[in-house]
Amino acid sequence: MVNEIKQLNRIFKAKSIAVVGVSTNPEKTGYIIMKNIIDGGFKGQIYPINPKGSEILGWRCYPSLIDVPINELDLVIVVVPAKFVPKVLEDVAKKQISGAVIISGGFREAGNDDLEASVVETAKKYGIRFIGPNCQGVTYTPNNLCAAWPLMKAKGNMAIISQSGTVAAAFAGWAEEDNLGLSSFISLGNKSDIDEIDLIKYFSLDNSTNVISMYLEGVKDGQTFMKVSRNVVSKKPIVVIRPGRTEKGGIAAQSHTKSVAGDYRIFDAACKQAGIIKADTVYELYDFSKILSLCKVPEGNRCLILTSSGGSGILATDIAERNGVDILNLKEETKTALSNILPPHCIIGNPLDLTGDTNVERYYKVVKKLKSVDYIDIVLLIFGDPIPNAADFVKRMKEEVSQEIVACYIGGGDIQDKEVLNLHQAGISTFPTPERAMRAISALIQYKIFLKKVF
Amino acid sequence: MVNEIKQLNRIFKAKSIAVVGVSTNPEKTGYIIMKNIIDGGFKGQIYPINPKGSEILGWRCYPSLIDVPINELDLVIVVVPAKFVPKVLEDVAKKQISGAVIISGGFREAGNDDLEASVVETAKKYGIRFIGPNCQGVTYTPNNLCAAWPLMKAKGNMAIISQSGTVAAAFAGWAEEDNLGLSSFISLGNKSDIDEIDLIKYFSLDNSTNVISMYLEGVKDGQTFMKVSRNVVSKKPIVVIRPGRTEKGGIAAQSHTKSVAGDYRIFDAACKQAGIIKADTVYELYDFSKILSLCKVPEGNRCLILTSSGGSGILATDIAERNGVDILNLKEETKTALSNILPPHCIIGNPLDLTGDTNVERYYKVVKKLKSVDYIDIVLLIFGDPIPNAADFVKRMKEEVSQEIVACYIGGGDIQDKEVLNLHQAGISTFPTPERAMRAISALIQYKIFLKKVF
Repeated sequence: MVNEIKQLNRIFKAKSIAVVGVSTNPEKTGYIIMKNIIDGGFKGQIYPINPKGSEILGWRCYPSLIDVPINELDLVIVVVPAKFVPKVLEDVAKKQISGAVIISGGFREAGNDDLEASVVETAKKYGIRFIGPNCQGVTYTPNNLCAAWPLMKAKGNMAIISQSGTVAAAFAGWAEEDNLGLSSFISLGNKSDIDEIDLIKYFSLDNSTNVISMYLEGVKDGQTFMKVSRNVVSKKPIVVIRPGRTEKGGIAAQSHTKSVAGDYRIFDAACKQAGIIKADTVYELYDFSKILSLCKVPEGNRCLILTSSGGSGILATDIAERNGVDILNLKEETKTALSNILPPHCIIGNPLDLTGDTNVERYYKVVKKLKSVDYIDIVLLIFGDPIPNAADFVKRMKEEVSQEIVACYIGGGDIQDKEVLNLHQAGISTFPTPERAMRAISALIQYKIFLKKVF
Repeated sequence: MVNEIKQLNRIFKAKSIAVVGVSTNPEKTGYIIMKNIIDGGFKGQIYPINPKGSEILGWRCYPSLIDVPINELDLVIVVVPAKFVPKVLEDVAKKQISGAVIISGGFREAGNDDLEASVVETAKKYGIRFIGPNCQGVTYTPNNLCAAWPLMKAKGNMAIISQSGTVAAAFAGWAEEDNLGLSSFISLGNKSDIDEIDLIKYFSLDNSTNVISMYLEGVKDGQTFMKVSRNVVSKKPIVVIRPGRTEKGGIAAQSHTKSVAGDYRIFDAACKQAGIIKADTVYELYDFSKILSLCKVPEGNRCLILTSSGGSGILATDIAERNGVDILNLKEETKTALSNILPPHCIIGNPLDLTGDTNVERYYKVVKKLKSVDYIDIVLLIFGDPIPNAADFVKRMKEEVSQEIVACYIGGGDIQDKEVLNLHQAGISTFPTPERAMRAISALIQYKIFLKKVF
C-alpha cells in the first residue's frame, strides 16, 4: 500500500515529465497535451520527445526517452500510435521511470487485445504503473499538472475519475464555470492497469480532495470495490454514475469500454452497503459532488425552504417529498416570531414565501431569527428574481447560524450570473433550478443516513 | 369568440399604452416596467401616469388616465398599490379602454378577497378584460411590447404562460441564452379574469407562436380546459408543468395562488386525453417546448445516436429505453455501407461511436450515407468534445436529409458555447446533456403518437 501510494505520487506529484509523441500540429493530441502542461502552469521540467523535432513551444525536443539528459524522470505521457507503445515502455523501464499515462488509443477498444496484453505484460515486468490506454489524460491541480484536455487550472476539492472523457470534461467545465474547480481529473480509458480501486485508495488519503466522483461502466472486482469504498466513505463521500442500466444501454457499454455490464441489482445493493451515493444523470454526478464537497453533514433531514418565488418553492417541495427530505412544519411560536418581522403579504409556512418584492435583507432577517430554532437542519434559500448582494448576506448567514445553507438562484438574469459566482466563492452550494437543488440536498441526507448507520 | 380575440389583440398588439403608477425610483416596479417598455423597442405611444411626476425617461407624465389627451388608448398597465386599483379601473372605463394588465399585488393572495372581488366586478361592469392581478406583466415580441420584467426582446416562437413569474422569467432567460427568444411571456398572477383557457384559444390562432408552454398550479374549469386543449393540440403542441403533486407540495400550491390542487390522477388523465405534453421539471418545460417548436413531427420513434463520446451515447440510450424511444438495430447492409466510409476504430452500432478523434466531416459523411435509410426517423448527434464548425455541417444535414436532426453538445468548452448558439440559429434543437436531449426526443414522439391516434 505504501509503495503503491508512492508510485501514484510520482505520477500526480511529478516534478519532471516527458511527453512522448509531441507534435507541432495544433490539432494533434501530442500538441494539445504539451500546450496544456505548459498553460496549466506546471513548475517542473518538461521533456518533449519526437524523433523529428528540435523544439516545441519553447522546450527542447529529444529524439527518444533514452536521450533525455537526466536520470530522475517522474512521469511519462505517451501519445504515440498504439503499435509503438510497447517499445516506449521498454525505454520507460530503461530510464527507471515507474509511472506513465498512456493516452494513445487503438488497443482493446479497437479489437487489438494482443497489443494491449503486451503493454500490460511489459509494464508488469518492469514494475511500471500506468493510467489508460485510450484515455484523455490526467490533471492534478495541487501540482499545477494538466496532462489532459480540456485545459484545467482552477483548484478545487472534487476529484473526477471517469471511463468517459467527455463526462469528465463536462464535469470539469461546470466546476470551472461555477468558480469551484477540481483537485483532480482522471480519464481511466481502458484501465488495464490503474483502476478505480487504486484511485479510490489514493484519493481517500489526498488532502486536497474531499469528494471522489466517478463515472464507471464496469467494476473489475466488485467485492474489493465494495470493501475499499465502504472504508473510504466513512471519511470521504464517493459519488458514482453507472450507465448501461437498460438492455440496450448495457450492450452499448460493452461496446464502449468492453466493461462487463453485470447485474445492476447487485451493483446497487453493493453501493447501498458501501454508502456510495448513486447519481442518475451527469448533472446529478456534478451536483451531488458539489454539495458534498461544500456542505457539512447536516444533523438531520429537516429542511426549510425560504423563497422569493412561490412556484419554485412548490417545485422544490415535490422533489423533497419524493426523496426523503422532510419539509418540516413550523411550530406556532416560530410562526409568531416570524410574523413579527415580516410584511403581512409574506406566506409564513414551509415553503416560506417572502414573495417577489423581497430583497436579500428580508432573507437575512428570517435566517437570523431561526438561528436558535433547533428543529431545522438545512435551509434552502431560493432567489427567484434578480436579487443583488445575495452572496454577501448568505456568507454572513453561513457564519452566524448552525443550520446548513444551500442556495438556488433562478430567473435572475445578469445579476444572477454574478451572484452565483460570488456564492460559490463564499463556499455556498448553489443550483440553477429548485429541482436540482433539492435532489442535491437529498444526496447530502443520504450520506448522513449512511454515516449514522455505520459509525 | 371573435370579440374576445379582438379584445386580447388590443392588449397584445396595442398601439398605445398607459402605465399607471410609474416611478422615478429605479428599484420600483413602476420604473422597471416603464423602462422595459421603452428598451423593448415599443413603437407606439406611451403615457406614464403619476400625480406627482412631470416626465419620466423622456416621456411626459400625466396626473391621471383622464388627463391623457387622446381617446384611443389600447392598453393600461397598472402598478399602483392594490387599494387604488378599483378607482383606476373606473378611469379605464371612462377612457373606453378595454384591456389592462394589473401587476399590483395585495389581493386574494394576501387575504384581501373582497378587494379582488371588487376589481373583478368593476371590470365586468365595464367590459374590461385584464391579466393579473399580482403578476409580472406581459411581453409580446411581434409587437416589440415588453410590459414585464425581465426585459425580453429576442423574437421566437414559444409562448410561456405561467402562474409563477420566476419560472416564466427563467424560461425566457434560457430562450434568450439559446439564441431563440419567445413570441410571448404572460405572467398569469391570480388570473381572476383572463385565464389559461382564454390564452390557449388566443395563442392557438397566433401565427407567431408554434408551441404553448404553461406552468399551472390549478385549472378553474377542467372540462373546458381539456376540450379546448384537445382542439388546439391537433394544430399546435401544448406543454404543461403542474407542481404540487405531493401532499406538502399541494398545500404549498394552495398557499401560493389559492389554486385548488385537485386530483392529479384526473389531471394526468385529462392531459393524456387532450394530448398535452407533461413536463416534470422546469428544464423539461423548456426543453420540450424547444424541441416541439423547432422540429417537425417525426415519422416514428426510431432513433439513431451518432456520437463522439461513447459514454454520452450510453447515457442517452438508457433514457431512450425508459421513455419509449426505439434505439433501432442497424441492418447488416447499413453496417457494411458505414464500415466502408469510417475508420476501423469506430464502433458501428447504435449508438454509433465515431470516437474522440472525430471531426464534424465524419458526422456529415455518416448522415449523408443514411439519407436513403428508411427505418430511421430521428438522428441524435452528440458532440462530446470541442468540435468546431458543427453548426455549419448540421445545417447542411438538415437541408439534405429527411430524418429529424437533434443535437447534444457537451464537454466542448468555449467552442461549444459558440456552436450551440449557431446550432440554434440554424434551427437545430440542441441540449447540454444526453439525458436532456433524449427526454426531449421522447416528448416529440409522445406528440407524434397523439396526433396519429386522433387524426
